[in-house]
Amino acid sequence: MSQQFEPTDIRSPLSADQLEVELRAIGEARYHHRHPFQLALQNGELSKAQVQAWALNRYYYQSMIPIKDASLMARLHDPELRREWRQRIIDHDGHGPGEGGIQRWLALTDGLGLDREMVVSTGKILPATRFAVEAYVHFVRERPLVEAIASSLTELFSPLVINTRVSGMLAHYAFVSEQTLAYFKPRMTQAPRDADFALDYVKRHALRVDQQQGVLAALRFKCDVLWSMLDALDYAYVAPRRIPPGAFDPEVDG
Amino acid sequence: MSQQFEPTDIRSPLSADQLEVELRAIGEARYHHRHPFQLALQNGELSKAQVQAWALNRYYYQSMIPIKDASLMARLHDPELRREWRQRIIDHDGHGPGEGGIQRWLALTDGLGLDREMVVSTGKILPATRFAVEAYVHFVRERPLVEAIASSLTELFSPLVINTRVSGMLAHYAFVSEQTLAYFKPRMTQAPRDADFALDYVKRHALRVDQQQGVLAALRFKCDVLWSMLDALDYAYVAPRRIPPGAFDPEVDG
Repeated sequence: MSQQFEPTDIRSPLSADQLEVELRAIGEARYHHRHPFQLALQNGELSKAQVQAWALNRYYYQSMIPIKDASLMARLHDPELRREWRQRIIDHDGHGPGEGGIQRWLALTDGLGLDREMVVSTGKILPATRFAVEAYVHFVRERPLVEAIASSLTELFSPLVINTRVSGMLAHYAFVSEQTLAYFKPRMTQAPRDADFALDYVKRHALRVDQQQGVLAALRFKCDVLWSMLDALDYAYVAPRRIPPGAFDPEVDG
Repeated sequence: MSQQFEPTDIRSPLSADQLEVELRAIGEARYHHRHPFQLALQNGELSKAQVQAWALNRYYYQSMIPIKDASLMARLHDPELRREWRQRIIDHDGHGPGEGGIQRWLALTDGLGLDREMVVSTGKILPATRFAVEAYVHFVRERPLVEAIASSLTELFSPLVINTRVSGMLAHYAFVSEQTLAYFKPRMTQAPRDADFALDYVKRHALRVDQQQGVLAALRFKCDVLWSMLDALDYAYVAPRRIPPGAFDPEVDG
């Protein structure tokens, strides 16, 4: 797809450590820890219906992550790399029924009182959620491999949200518990492990200027994916609270 | 891509005319003639900066339409069908430099005072615009052919917006003229011609229940594409007016 990105102003190749500095600066500026919906979520300012809408839409993201990772793994010709990347799929899909990150996300939507069939069907998510998540999968299939791997680097910044999100939600919302938030606990070790691997790969393989511009653009793109998902939730369910046709309506579906 | 749609409750095949009734009912309910941003645009309630943002983002949609149509044409094995579909690309790309619908759209963005290089780069559009338009292109590449063709049927409803949009914009905005709105005049005859052809194709080829469900879902999907583009514009530039990182900022880029 003809994705156009603003070029990063790099004239000559950065050192690996300079590249890391640039990547971390993008996360600091653009990761969704700064988004008003994220702040409202962790500060206890959302209604149960708004938290339901978030969990329902985020389920689609969670459910597509192994498909994204399998798409990426299908492009890796080195068994060692594939073994490394495979762990991500195991984390999300588990070793058997009832296990893995997707199941733990469903424990959250169950705990919020959402109908499981509705959640799993994804029929009531916001179109903007679907389009953003699909853009991520297509990106990973179509862009140069080092950019596909770099697009996972938002995980470098997940410590910026997971702890505050969990503690904030537990403190403020009677309708969540440590049990329903079980998804997040393993992520606190999985995400940094995955991010370290991907960052090391990117630092070793993005050596030319065009590659470095590409990986910086890839991380901006991925931040846009997460940000636009929260924009759409904020618009539909917070203010001006305009639910698009056919999407989850808490008064009907909640 | 694993797109999930709410199934339409069809138990046995509809007649071709019943199918048309169902398609028109979807447009009446879900086409963007009902969107608050569209109403504000045609009622003269937007600032020049907001109209700029609309024209800038919509440019990306316009610029990708021939790519969408070429993707569809690449799936047609009948020269007659390809000749028919080719006209859409000619309409948008013209017969020579300075011609065609995309050029006429650039006359609008020029007239609004937008930097042409910025517009053509698409570097400042909303990520949600990019994701929605790309979803449309991918849909046309990946879904069954009759659904790909059905996704163009929003053109059935363009008479619901084009006339009121042009007359409303001319009446209310000093910064547009018949000349800068030249894009829309040929569309008033092109869109119905294209829509009639596509509707006839869909009525003749969507005969089984699953095909009919598919084409109804395809039209809902396409309405979602257009609707989500206006949701994102409304959120970023009207209320709560939160421009996502990196997107067009009228105070900087206008």
